[in-house]
Amino acid sequence: MSTLLIDGQEQGGVPAGDRGLAYGDGVFETLRLSAGRPRLLERHLQRLQQGCGRLGFEAPASSLLMADIEAVAAAAPPDGVVKLIVTRGDGGRGYRPPPAPRARRIVSAHPAPAYDPAWWTEGVSLRICATRLGRNPALAGIKHLNRLEQVLARREWDDPEVPEGLMLDDAGHLVCGTQSNLFVLRDGTLMTPALDACGVAGVMRGFVLSQAASLGLRVGVGAMKLEVLEEAQEIFLTNAVIGIWPVRATGVHAFAPGVVAARMQQCLARETA
Amino acid sequence: MSTLLIDGQEQGGVPAGDRGLAYGDGVFETLRLSAGRPRLLERHLQRLQQGCGRLGFEAPASSLLMADIEAVAAAAPPDGVVKLIVTRGDGGRGYRPPPAPRARRIVSAHPAPAYDPAWWTEGVSLRICATRLGRNPALAGIKHLNRLEQVLARREWDDPEVPEGLMLDDAGHLVCGTQSNLFVLRDGTLMTPALDACGVAGVMRGFVLSQAASLGLRVGVGAMKLEVLEEAQEIFLTNAVIGIWPVRATGVHAFAPGVVAARMQQCLARETA
Repeated sequence: MSTLLIDGQEQGGVPAGDRGLAYGDGVFETLRLSAGRPRLLERHLQRLQQGCGRLGFEAPASSLLMADIEAVAAAAPPDGVVKLIVTRGDGGRGYRPPPAPRARRIVSAHPAPAYDPAWWTEGVSLRICATRLGRNPALAGIKHLNRLEQVLARREWDDPEVPEGLMLDDAGHLVCGTQSNLFVLRDGTLMTPALDACGVAGVMRGFVLSQAASLGLRVGVGAMKLEVLEEAQEIFLTNAVIGIWPVRATGVHAFAPGVVAARMQQCLARETA
Repeated sequence: MSTLLIDGQEQGGVPAGDRGLAYGDGVFETLRLSAGRPRLLERHLQRLQQGCGRLGFEAPASSLLMADIEAVAAAAPPDGVVKLIVTRGDGGRGYRPPPAPRARRIVSAHPAPAYDPAWWTEGVSLRICATRLGRNPALAGIKHLNRLEQVLARREWDDPEVPEGLMLDDAGHLVCGTQSNLFVLRDGTLMTPALDACGVAGVMRGFVLSQAASLGLRVGVGAMKLEVLEEAQEIFLTNAVIGIWPVRATGVHAFAPGVVAARMQQCLARETA
């Protein structure tokens, strides 16, 4: 049993000429295992395929990816994490991609992060990051490997009681957390920032949006300023590993963990039961 | 003699947990060899150190990098190319960098690209890329590994007679070529776009700026709109591998290869003689 497969092989390293290393030319997915089974697998594989398509190369066959995931998941804790990296493969020197790239898959298993269990019930405290997101519609929404903005944002703080920070774009719009998507409830509408200029369209974001109607909520996807947080009845964060975290404080504003976040957690638990 | 060294060792691959692969968390340099010696070496090493510093980690000692460069250059053609990648090293999963990262160096030798010799004397034709550059002052100027914008731009065309395309930022300012910097001569002033929001501050750009006064030229570094090309007496491109290419056509506008580009080529030849 191996916790790392590169193109399906148990081997030590990635070739130095890989375009993922050279240019961040690829995409990734982080899947949470639930009783040993990857959660929201179809959504992850679909997003990965869409991301490769927007970057202009063919994703590996889902059957290959699923075989890799299954193999490393067998060596992982039953509530662990599986990470998929898919790059455009080898490509020599120069930005121009080869005419017929052969995508490379790098699949690895990891323990679940050691988060405070109270963050799911009592909520988390957030900071507002100083690092801004550049706007580029050609890359917006894709979970690609160009993540220096998130790395710099995550370097801004060191407080273990603050697990996440919100990021604005260079025009001052709220976009997402460094590793999560943002939802704000106001007057029966569940609002989340549009991701047409930057940000990652999270798999858990997609799941939450798909459940809103069943909870009697309208959905609003659009531009959001920081001030919208002041008028929120409820705020929560989503990502594929954490699921749903209520937010109890954003800088100066405090919130009670809300009903909608709890109901969404129940939807997710049912989905993976 | 090896053409690839990873942390100074002749080995096959980069660990899958490297942050350069995971997030593009690193920088790179591409040096041109001239009679076997790396051209503008001090400028490259200085930029690399500055780039690591801005990303928040310590670059490898220059002595280590120079030893690697020397070793792979000995196995390369005397007019070849040496590429340095320096990543933040291993870092597990998650954007947050480790508290004491150990940078990884990946140094490789390559043949020189097979460019048409006439491009140095008669000039090149350019296109204007549709792919725009997002604006992010925190990353502007750094030759980091997040290069998907350049990859997507370079995918736009396939004409072997057009070696380069110019890129605008999302506010419509001229920034640079996909792999080069832009200079425009007008009324005795050598103008080049400011790189305070995006773009790479090329080593050859720095060299050209340092030589301008000796050629009796004023320098103007600032915001430039596409229309400035219409009023140019001369346009040229720079990068560390090509040196200086005059521009003879940008879409609808045609130019004669200019005197300043030729003089800059002479300055560079003297520098490396």
